[in-house]
Amino acid sequence: MDIQTFFEQSAGRWFSQRTSHHLAFKQSESGKSQLTIEFLSVTDPAVIALCNQYEIDGSQALCGARVSWDGTMEWDEEKHEGSTVIVPVADGKHSTEGKLLREMGYAEKAPVAGRYVMGSDGALTLITEYDTMYSEERIWFASPNLRLRTSILKRFGGFSMASFCSEIRLGVTQAATPTAATAQAPAE
Amino acid sequence: MDIQTFFEQSAGRWFSQRTSHHLAFKQSESGKSQLTIEFLSVTDPAVIALCNQYEIDGSQALCGARVSWDGTMEWDEEKHEGSTVIVPVADGKHSTEGKLLREMGYAEKAPVAGRYVMGSDGALTLITEYDTMYSEERIWFASPNLRLRTSILKRFGGFSMASFCSEIRLGVTQAATPTAATAQAPAE
Repeated sequence: MDIQTFFEQSAGRWFSQRTSHHLAFKQSESGKSQLTIEFLSVTDPAVIALCNQYEIDGSQALCGARVSWDGTMEWDEEKHEGSTVIVPVADGKHSTEGKLLREMGYAEKAPVAGRYVMGSDGALTLITEYDTMYSEERIWFASPNLRLRTSILKRFGGFSMASFCSEIRLGVTQAATPTAATAQAPAE
Repeated sequence: MDIQTFFEQSAGRWFSQRTSHHLAFKQSESGKSQLTIEFLSVTDPAVIALCNQYEIDGSQALCGARVSWDGTMEWDEEKHEGSTVIVPVADGKHSTEGKLLREMGYAEKAPVAGRYVMGSDGALTLITEYDTMYSEERIWFASPNLRLRTSILKRFGGFSMASFCSEIRLGVTQAATPTAATAQAPAE
């Protein structure tokens, strides 16, 4: 699978169950959210604007996505909602690895581009490094309608958190393809 | 990493945090356990006995492990403890893929051998198929002292559960190797 196909397959509305294992505390925290992912073509104004922000030639962008979320986590019970745009930019000719541009948040002073690696097993790995923090996320499809994500977070060189999300596509009443490998959970 | 190295690196005592996402119910359940993994050589009587049980020539076994667990899950609050022996047997000359023999439980009538695939990325995938159930587990090391596991369970062709375990090596007061990639969570 190439990264464009991965982004296309990610488009839609998802019900996401998230669990974070706080490693030092040996405690876990759960959350639920609704995720909306919109596929953006390279000619989308949001993709062009993000490339400009990072001073990257827009013709190098492979595609884009607008990701919106709306959910709650157990410990703070506050609403977590937000939206961002992400754009993968290949290293040279090969699109299996490259930069991942991300819309800056309010708290960030400078744009920090992450890295992406599209694995031969169809899993997408996203790596983000800040001064004192390192995050590595792995996202893959168990089926077209079930997407899984794990992430590990390091702070000051030590692992602090391991998280897991299972994401079920919403609005699907029938399996997308009539094979045994297709998630039937949404229809059950 | 070959499968013998993976088993050797798994040996030890681990604190395991487990979360199961019940997909149809959209509910999650947490648990904690202590896991003890003992590496077994091909000459170990338990490895030889398991090969005999499956009518497999003992010289085909690559290694073995005795896995013991002792923990609780949130919903039933009962003690879950047990122990099993597993033995990987290569397909032909290549040890990257093969059968995974497992000690039979009391409830099982016939031995069911699973499959293992040792990925080029260092992740071990275990697949078990029963009549109405299919389970696929992926296990990998984030560092020598932090092991992660995800598993998906299908019943009657539909996904019913997605689980995640983070496992921290116990009894480690210092990082095993002095690199940034080493889990420091146990020492924090």
